[in-house]
Amino acid sequence: MSNTLQNKETLRVPEPTLRRLPWYLSNVKLLKQKGEHFVSSTQISKEINVDASQIAKDLSYVNISGRTRVGYEVDTLIAVLEDFLGFSNIHRAFLFGVGSLGGALLSDSGLKHFGLEIVAAFDVKPQLLGTEVNGIPIFHSDDFEKKVQEYGVNIGVLTVPIEIAQRITDKMVAGGIKAVWNFTPFRIRVPENIVVQNTSLYAHLAVMFNRLNFNEVK
Amino acid sequence: MSNTLQNKETLRVPEPTLRRLPWYLSNVKLLKQKGEHFVSSTQISKEINVDASQIAKDLSYVNISGRTRVGYEVDTLIAVLEDFLGFSNIHRAFLFGVGSLGGALLSDSGLKHFGLEIVAAFDVKPQLLGTEVNGIPIFHSDDFEKKVQEYGVNIGVLTVPIEIAQRITDKMVAGGIKAVWNFTPFRIRVPENIVVQNTSLYAHLAVMFNRLNFNEVK
Repeated sequence: MSNTLQNKETLRVPEPTLRRLPWYLSNVKLLKQKGEHFVSSTQISKEINVDASQIAKDLSYVNISGRTRVGYEVDTLIAVLEDFLGFSNIHRAFLFGVGSLGGALLSDSGLKHFGLEIVAAFDVKPQLLGTEVNGIPIFHSDDFEKKVQEYGVNIGVLTVPIEIAQRITDKMVAGGIKAVWNFTPFRIRVPENIVVQNTSLYAHLAVMFNRLNFNEVK
Repeated sequence: MSNTLQNKETLRVPEPTLRRLPWYLSNVKLLKQKGEHFVSSTQISKEINVDASQIAKDLSYVNISGRTRVGYEVDTLIAVLEDFLGFSNIHRAFLFGVGSLGGALLSDSGLKHFGLEIVAAFDVKPQLLGTEVNGIPIFHSDDFEKKVQEYGVNIGVLTVPIEIAQRITDKMVAGGIKAVWNFTPFRIRVPENIVVQNTSLYAHLAVMFNRLNFNEVK
């Protein structure tokens, strides 16, 4: 990471920035629908309650420059943001564990619009094997090593019970998976070069319940 | 919030703590399955790679005390954590927007084990009205005010398209919803006393894609 020819896309962008950029994207999409052709960071700022200077700073990671007084061109900003965030090219993924949440994610075709396509799922329950959910085939976990070659996938979505979360993670990594999207409430361990993104719906519920309870008694 | 009789549950617990507590819970559940009767913060620390002092500090928010040398009693710790996190009593919720993600969440019965039960959903698409997903009835959005009385619900799950995210939020709040679980990538605005929990799967995807890309080129 020491050469100056480094493509902007390969910068390790701060996580808070990466989390805010999709807000700007959705906001700019709305402005486009309203017929706007240009948008400034001040304008976005007013809509979403984030400092204009913060927005300008976040957008400085993205390869786009605004024009004085008129701001960013809306269509370009949308295209550049979608590209930068990885939403405009499809990343193929496997899903492990077709339980309630796993099945739900398989049936959510919306992820495809944000660059993720689940192409196959794995489980061990006999009644699931050979079936499909939303057109996605379900294979036996033992077939994973074979299928990973066939599909050329490097992302794994983890929706297994907590007691096997670590074992399945190890199996994924051994098979060549480079990024794990972990939906379990279990804190998995991976080698340093493997990406883990935790999305614990349960942790979010815990925060929401606590705040709700707090508001009710204060 | 100035009296000392204040119940521990009503403290405004820091968000990072609330996000870590479910890790401890799932870890302790695993230890129980393995036949353990007592667990120390040092033991949890080894398993999940969080400082033992941090774990002890986080657990100090919860109404439980460990015994010197043996630690926390496993069954009690599980029960107290589940209770503290709000997982052991059911919070009834409405869902707004039965699209791809909304429908997926309706079919995820697993949320019930963590204290959230979606009891009805709202949409405007004629072909959905009067139908059910996973036993959950779908009503017309116009019926929300009537249904909120009938069901006594104060949590709303938001899975509508971004262009109506703010309008539906305003409608929810006007109808008496006190907490919004926002799955849209849109940054909604609410009055001060309303809880918002953002769960943007798309922002998580953006972070994962960026890290994966970074690892591949570094």
